[in-house]
Amino acid sequence: MLTLDYHPTGRHFLQIPGPSPVPDRILRAMSLPTIDHRGPEFAGLGKKVLAGIQQVFQTKHPVVIYPASGTGAWEAALCNVLSPGDAVLMYETGHFAALWIKMAKRLGLEAETIGLPGVEGWRRGVQADMIGERLRQDTQHRIKAVCVVHNETSTGVTSDIQAVRKAIDAAGHPALLLVDSISGLASAEYRHDAWGVDVTISGSQKGLMLPPGISFNALSPRALEASKTARLPKAFWAWDEMVEMNKTGYFPYTPNTNLLYGLAEACDMLLDPAQGGMEAVFARHRRWAEGVRTAVRAWGLEIQCADPSVYSPVLTGVVTPEGVDADKVRQLIWERFDLSLGTGLGKIKGRMFRIGHLGDCNDLTLMAALSGCEMGLKLSGVKLAGSGVQAAMDYFAGHPAQVALLKAA
Amino acid sequence: MLTLDYHPTGRHFLQIPGPSPVPDRILRAMSLPTIDHRGPEFAGLGKKVLAGIQQVFQTKHPVVIYPASGTGAWEAALCNVLSPGDAVLMYETGHFAALWIKMAKRLGLEAETIGLPGVEGWRRGVQADMIGERLRQDTQHRIKAVCVVHNETSTGVTSDIQAVRKAIDAAGHPALLLVDSISGLASAEYRHDAWGVDVTISGSQKGLMLPPGISFNALSPRALEASKTARLPKAFWAWDEMVEMNKTGYFPYTPNTNLLYGLAEACDMLLDPAQGGMEAVFARHRRWAEGVRTAVRAWGLEIQCADPSVYSPVLTGVVTPEGVDADKVRQLIWERFDLSLGTGLGKIKGRMFRIGHLGDCNDLTLMAALSGCEMGLKLSGVKLAGSGVQAAMDYFAGHPAQVALLKAA
Amino acid sequence: MLTLDYHPTGRHFLQIPGPSPVPDRILRAMSLPTIDHRGPEFAGLGKKVLAGIQQVFQTKHPVVIYPASGTGAWEAALCNVLSPGDAVLMYETGHFAALWIKMAKRLGLEAETIGLPGVEGWRRGVQADMIGERLRQDTQHRIKAVCVVHNETSTGVTSDIQAVRKAIDAAGHPALLLVDSISGLASAEYRHDAWGVDVTISGSQKGLMLPPGISFNALSPRALEASKTARLPKAFWAWDEMVEMNKTGYFPYTPNTNLLYGLAEACDMLLDPAQGGMEAVFARHRRWAEGVRTAVRAWGLEIQCADPSVYSPVLTGVVTPEGVDADKVRQLIWERFDLSLGTGLGKIKGRMFRIGHLGDCNDLTLMAALSGCEMGLKLSGVKLAGSGVQAAMDYFAGHPAQVALLKAA
Amino acid sequence: MLTLDYHPTGRHFLQIPGPSPVPDRILRAMSLPTIDHRGPEFAGLGKKVLAGIQQVFQTKHPVVIYPASGTGAWEAALCNVLSPGDAVLMYETGHFAALWIKMAKRLGLEAETIGLPGVEGWRRGVQADMIGERLRQDTQHRIKAVCVVHNETSTGVTSDIQAVRKAIDAAGHPALLLVDSISGLASAEYRHDAWGVDVTISGSQKGLMLPPGISFNALSPRALEASKTARLPKAFWAWDEMVEMNKTGYFPYTPNTNLLYGLAEACDMLLDPAQGGMEAVFARHRRWAEGVRTAVRAWGLEIQCADPSVYSPVLTGVVTPEGVDADKVRQLIWERFDLSLGTGLGKIKGRMFRIGHLGDCNDLTLMAALSGCEMGLKLSGVKLAGSGVQAAMDYFAGHPAQVALLKAA
Repeated sequence: MLTLDYHPTGRHFLQIPGPSPVPDRILRAMSLPTIDHRGPEFAGLGKKVLAGIQQVFQTKHPVVIYPASGTGAWEAALCNVLSPGDAVLMYETGHFAALWIKMAKRLGLEAETIGLPGVEGWRRGVQADMIGERLRQDTQHRIKAVCVVHNETSTGVTSDIQAVRKAIDAAGHPALLLVDSISGLASAEYRHDAWGVDVTISGSQKGLMLPPGISFNALSPRALEASKTARLPKAFWAWDEMVEMNKTGYFPYTPNTNLLYGLAEACDMLLDPAQGGMEAVFARHRRWAEGVRTAVRAWGLEIQCADPSVYSPVLTGVVTPEGVDADKVRQLIWERFDLSLGTGLGKIKGRMFRIGHLGDCNDLTLMAALSGCEMGLKLSGVKLAGSGVQAAMDYFAGHPAQVALLKAA
Repeated sequence: MLTLDYHPTGRHFLQIPGPSPVPDRILRAMSLPTIDHRGPEFAGLGKKVLAGIQQVFQTKHPVVIYPASGTGAWEAALCNVLSPGDAVLMYETGHFAALWIKMAKRLGLEAETIGLPGVEGWRRGVQADMIGERLRQDTQHRIKAVCVVHNETSTGVTSDIQAVRKAIDAAGHPALLLVDSISGLASAEYRHDAWGVDVTISGSQKGLMLPPGISFNALSPRALEASKTARLPKAFWAWDEMVEMNKTGYFPYTPNTNLLYGLAEACDMLLDPAQGGMEAVFARHRRWAEGVRTAVRAWGLEIQCADPSVYSPVLTGVVTPEGVDADKVRQLIWERFDLSLGTGLGKIKGRMFRIGHLGDCNDLTLMAALSGCEMGLKLSGVKLAGSGVQAAMDYFAGHPAQVALLKAA
Repeated sequence: MLTLDYHPTGRHFLQIPGPSPVPDRILRAMSLPTIDHRGPEFAGLGKKVLAGIQQVFQTKHPVVIYPASGTGAWEAALCNVLSPGDAVLMYETGHFAALWIKMAKRLGLEAETIGLPGVEGWRRGVQADMIGERLRQDTQHRIKAVCVVHNETSTGVTSDIQAVRKAIDAAGHPALLLVDSISGLASAEYRHDAWGVDVTISGSQKGLMLPPGISFNALSPRALEASKTARLPKAFWAWDEMVEMNKTGYFPYTPNTNLLYGLAEACDMLLDPAQGGMEAVFARHRRWAEGVRTAVRAWGLEIQCADPSVYSPVLTGVVTPEGVDADKVRQLIWERFDLSLGTGLGKIKGRMFRIGHLGDCNDLTLMAALSGCEMGLKLSGVKLAGSGVQAAMDYFAGHPAQVALLKAA
Repeated sequence: MLTLDYHPTGRHFLQIPGPSPVPDRILRAMSLPTIDHRGPEFAGLGKKVLAGIQQVFQTKHPVVIYPASGTGAWEAALCNVLSPGDAVLMYETGHFAALWIKMAKRLGLEAETIGLPGVEGWRRGVQADMIGERLRQDTQHRIKAVCVVHNETSTGVTSDIQAVRKAIDAAGHPALLLVDSISGLASAEYRHDAWGVDVTISGSQKGLMLPPGISFNALSPRALEASKTARLPKAFWAWDEMVEMNKTGYFPYTPNTNLLYGLAEACDMLLDPAQGGMEAVFARHRRWAEGVRTAVRAWGLEIQCADPSVYSPVLTGVVTPEGVDADKVRQLIWERFDLSLGTGLGKIKGRMFRIGHLGDCNDLTLMAALSGCEMGLKLSGVKLAGSGVQAAMDYFAGHPAQVALLKAA
């Protein structure tokens, strides 16, 4: 027997921005016996998760569920709508956007990076006007797709997707809009249809509160149309057989049955009307994020996201003072307080850490995490302006969550 | 399917002084398939748990494991060594001691209550000299047993059991010493043999980190001798067949197999030499308790236990100011912060609440609990002298636990 | 980590007459986090299981749920309605009846054994006329209770409880009727109220498909009345506080919370109207039992129960030919085929083995068990008249279960 | 809560040739909390599974673990070593081989199908001499790879991979050898290095006894070399970053952590020296397969595999008599006996069904499955020559498994 639970006592606090803590309800659902994915019982499960995930994406169009992790869904989005050598305009908001750009190039696309320069570019959201301007220059419509990240997991910036759509439309450009909402979906507000997105990419291990292992492409009719002529090779990722076969609740090749059990449970939890459904989900993450930022401000530390209008409700990047190695702080916190925080990635490695407020979370879990951060920062010799923990308590006590009001009623 | 998990998000913080939070490792062990308790595989399990529980009690003599909750083990202790009408001297340290006295009377014993008077009596430990004095008066040795509670769960007072033994011996009295360590065992220091206890009673749902459902009588040779002539009726609780049959790893009637799986896992966790064994367990609860008391002091609130030499390492009773209904505070905290605290019991109902620091716990879990208390007290209008959360952070940061040192090494 | 799963491959077939195989649904339910049994959520659980278990016993009167295994519920029944020295008439149908008689004597009752003599007595059900006759002789009504076992687990005989009630009534005798249905409940037809039983004793680890650890006393108004004056000492087992406190969904002392989760799930499974409720449960065990007996007859072996009118639907005792040690056959089967069978107990040790058809079971599980028996008998050198497996297949194929018909519909 | 467990009683018998029944040990391992795949604990898990899976494949070279199901691993094998338009020689042994050929074409390869013609071709293994002959004709070495299926899941034929290697070598042809052992690995004998395979593809949901969701490419040095110049676009499937990063126990993108827990447990089970390791695994599947075939022969039905030298140890295809719709038989068996069997696929749909003897299995599970088949065939009006169940009992009783001998010793 594997003993990864080597913590002698107590539950580890996993406050990285994903994989997020998996609720026990979901682990229990995942332990249902694996069934025949061609058998009569499976169709009920398939239909349930396919309908549920549409509600989560807020779309009436097909959502493809891959038995693969999120990186695969990036590739799927690209290879279903693009052909070798196609030009794509990709906005670099941070490390994950940069990885997606790297993938596009590797797949043989002509990926053009756009974005604000330097480290500052990683502290702000997508500048829709820059995209609009670039598209207007592309009078021959060589650019086939615009790719942006909704919630940049490496920085804690949640870009305005509607603004990007409007910029494309205002430029009168036919490019498709491809959006990575791997870490945004089911935590931050997201509306695939209303926002006019052509392909939304997501994964299981963030807002859906599942272990990693399944991922998604939500489609638009235009994306489906484009897929008919796109020529990048594809088989596993191909939408056509998936969309066709999903109509009956089945899949063209072996799905990840036990994660689908988990997904069914996650949809029940997220969509539960008694709890307020998706709007309540969005609201609780906004509230948690503000509580965490209140703490960071009280510490006198900088938030990685420099534009309050695009603060992420999913995670908060905390910049450590000059000369403080953020990774050493993280390590001390892990050793002393059984708390995992996200590392700084790429350009900002060692300069910041990330606190996740997603997955199976509540006010006290966050208070625990903030306490761990505050103790760890102090033990690392960081001078704090004040107590973030105190500030967060004031915030949470002063701003009751919707659910607490329901329980007291 | 039962949906008791109705909390929409996050894990409930169960900080009552038992049932304590059950580690996932133990829940997983409990899900092993039930086996034939007369079959060849069972003996290995039986021998393992019987040997393990002896180490936890620190005894070389038999420990009887009942497939029954702790209240039954109280009855077992009494009916195995006493006869109808026997006099027993029972010290009232709090609500649970009082319930045990009530039980003794109900079983037809002549239970004499001893203790300091009034509410003050529930704020101090067993006064061994009072017991010694009373026994010296009993020149005819009518008193057959002295009954005391080691860790009084209703108040957070951990009495000095060695002192009681010495007082009995100094009085030259043959009374047996019966000790309830239901909530003390496997959290607070306890040494059945070294302290000269005749019967120690305990249960599964506290320091052993199991769900309720099994309980224990640790025996001394004198207790076994007394059981041969004791005349209270007994069958289910009778030690004789248990002790005899346990020699082979089996039980005379159906044991609670799945909780024994959990007990085997709990013993592995508690006794693990790589983690420091029982001494490390005692040390971590002492440290947690001091952290929590530091918070209570910073709030300017009184600790229920008025004698620092008998502070409980398992739980801390917090007295609310005059005019503040502690149960209303608890309810608000439960509704707003998904945190369960222990209620005041008996004489002190509404006047205090209890914070458990036992079971599957760590520093950040306690910081979460203290944050919930601090927010809840303030929201209830209690004026606090200062931030207990701040004080506890200073304490925990300043006093690294043994295990954190090991991990960093 | 305990490795009791040492079978290298495949699931063990636990076909003893209890503990029965626990369905995964119940194991999952038991892994819900332990909650505060004094907290606001608990009442819902308490009320649900108390109402559910009444339906299983088919009673409108209180059912007491003990956090203790079945042997304790025997003691509870006796000590709540009887006083020291009371005469009780106890019918010996087999080993478990004999153990109950031994317990009654140990508790200080004047237990009079009744029954057919010798080994033959263990092959037939309760002879109600013998009881009637004995009660008519007891003109002074010294006998306070008649104790019988409904489903004798050691032999596979299910006695006619209604006939016993009628015999008592016909004798005009006021004795209470106490019935052990530990292994009968939730498999064999049982109707506490309609059959006029005063106390029915049961346990969790048989028809309720739970691990051992909780047990039951179903009461009648007369039993409750008798409990007010009965003088055997009792505290843990006392009905009064239980019945009173259960009205609110709570328990006077710590219940076995995680087994109550399992009980809630078991009640959902057993009472599910879509599956036909308790009547369908009774029908499926009758059908399985007949299939198993068909196999035994085909083998040319004797069934332990010599009276077809009282064949048990829960288990079948199989008598091995003279000179064949049944326990050696069982051991070979365990070693070769990962199948546990019940041993012969008491007078019939080594002369028979028992096949359980209870708990989480279906036709193919029984076919597996019968195959294991048939192979094991042959390997042990037992000459069989024919193939029991073949006969059982013919029976099961020829007699579709109700549920199969529903699925096909 | 999802209620897919709608079977009213008993465990479903999942005897399809994968997904195979998942042992409880593995489900428990999969319920460990998801950890940070970039954190300090993960490296231990990563190294353990990477080392374990090498032993299962019997290779000293890298094995890539994809967080994707098996179909993806097919694509991975092709796109890492081939370039657009490359010729590949693919042998059609059955439906899964045909699907792989279809995928190769879809990816833009020039896939040449080879094999025996018609339905007969699906009843025999790979004809290595046909491959050798074709390669000798390819004097210009246009063929870059030979693709064969080791264990054809649709028919129950296990081809001789060594013979294919020898044929390639004898032809003096440089083509790479790509082998699909999705359903063979960890059940049928397989030796990646010794047999000279360049890429072996496998998945989790067969012999590894896991739910679907991870898959594998075992590599040879030649395959790694070829991957440096191959030009099919690849990113998610690319070996380079995987192999590099795996050296430290980490993965370049999010792995399927909870399935890796399961994989670690599966490796412990399969490789356990106390159970005989992989050789004992191969032996037990061979024995089970022979037992099942003995039953099929006794029924007088044809085995789909017409060549005894390539009978599959993993599954057995059973041909139904002319005029009997095998899928109707399967449906009746599912409805009546809670047994899932594999359907006929492609050309042989409706003409045969498949019995899996893989995953969490033992003799009695197979006896149950065979009983269900025999009853179902008879109920469907199929005339059987004799009792397959009887024949299988004779076989299993007469041929003790290695482990039974160990237990008895």
